[in-house]
Amino acid sequence: MSKGAATRQAILDQGFDLASKAGLRGVTIGALAEALGLSKSGLFAHFKSKDALDAALIEHTGARFVERVVRPALKAPRGEPRIRDLFARVLDWPTRSGLPGGCPMIAAAAELDDCEGPARDVLVAQQKDWLDTLANLARVAVREGHFRADVSPEQFAFECYGIQLMHHSAARLLRDPLADERARAAFEALIARARVEA
Amino acid sequence: MSKGAATRQAILDQGFDLASKAGLRGVTIGALAEALGLSKSGLFAHFKSKDALDAALIEHTGARFVERVVRPALKAPRGEPRIRDLFARVLDWPTRSGLPGGCPMIAAAAELDDCEGPARDVLVAQQKDWLDTLANLARVAVREGHFRADVSPEQFAFECYGIQLMHHSAARLLRDPLADERARAAFEALIARARVEA
Repeated sequence: MSKGAATRQAILDQGFDLASKAGLRGVTIGALAEALGLSKSGLFAHFKSKDALDAALIEHTGARFVERVVRPALKAPRGEPRIRDLFARVLDWPTRSGLPGGCPMIAAAAELDDCEGPARDVLVAQQKDWLDTLANLARVAVREGHFRADVSPEQFAFECYGIQLMHHSAARLLRDPLADERARAAFEALIARARVEA
Repeated sequence: MSKGAATRQAILDQGFDLASKAGLRGVTIGALAEALGLSKSGLFAHFKSKDALDAALIEHTGARFVERVVRPALKAPRGEPRIRDLFARVLDWPTRSGLPGGCPMIAAAAELDDCEGPARDVLVAQQKDWLDTLANLARVAVREGHFRADVSPEQFAFECYGIQLMHHSAARLLRDPLADERARAAFEALIARARVEA
C-alpha cells in the first residue's frame, strides 16, 4: 500500500469509529485531523469536501459489513441455515467490528433521508444492495425447498430488515436488555411463516 | 395565550418543521431566529441551550403525535379495530401533520442514541411510552378475545414498531413506491399471528 493509500485508509478507519458514536455529522474534517494528527489541508488532499468524505465513509462501512457479516455467512449451507447465520451476525456486527457505538449505516440513513447529494446516493444504493441480498437468500431458500413457493422474497427482506432496525433502536437508544431476545423471537416467527409445513 | 407563550409555540412549530427535514442537528438557534425574524438573544430567552431546545422539540413532537395519531384512534372500538386504526394513522402521520420531511422522532432517535443528556432522556421516555401504548392495545385485544391469550404484548409492540421503522426507511430514504403496501402486508401478518383462530 502506498503512503497515500495508507493515510486514506487510516482516515476512513477513524471516521468509521466517529460515525458509529456521533453519526456522519459528528465526523468533521477538523475532528478527524485532530484525532489523526494531520493538518486540515492534509485531510482535504484526500477528500475534497465533507460530502465526498461522507460518501467514502459509507462505502467503507459497506465494505466492512460485507467482509464481517455477509462473506462469513456464505460459508453456511444454502437456504434457511445461511439466512439464520447471517441474521445472527447482523445483530452484533457493530460490537464484533470493534465499533464504539451503533451501526454507522443506520445512523446515516436517518441523517441523509432528506439530504440530496452523492453521500445519499451511495447510501441508497447500499441499502438496496442489502435488501437484495436478503431477498436473494430467501429466493434460494424457496429453491432449496426450505421456504414455501408463495413466499415473497422482497417482503421477507423488508420484514427482516425491519427487525434489524427495531433491534438497533431497542439496543442502542432504549438500552433494553431484552433487545436481542425480542429480535430473535421476531426472526423465528418470520422464518416459521415462510417455512414449508413439516 | 401570553405573548411569551405564543412566541415559544411559534419557535417550536418552526423547529418541528426544520427537524422533520434536517434532523435535530439541523435545528440551530441561528436558523430558527432567521426563519422567525427574531434575534438570537430573543430565542435564548426562551431556550437557554441547544439541549433544552432539543428536549422541548421532542416533547412538542410527542404531543403532536398523541393529538394527531393516538387520540383519534381511541375513537375506534377497543381491541383489534383500534390497533388497525392506529397503525393506519402512524404510516402517514408526518404527511398528515403537514411536515415537510419524515418523522422527527425517528430522526432524533438515530442522532441521540449515543448522546447523553436531557434531550436523550426525554426521547427515551417518549419511545418507551409509545411501546407501552402499543403493548397496552395488544393487551386489551387479548382481553376482548381478539388476540390469543399467549400473545406477548411487549413482543407485539416490538414487532409493530419495527414495521413502522422499516416503513419510514423505505418511504423516506429509499423512496420505495411499495413502502406502504409492504408495511401493510407485514402488519396483516403480525395481526394474523396474534389472532384467535376463527
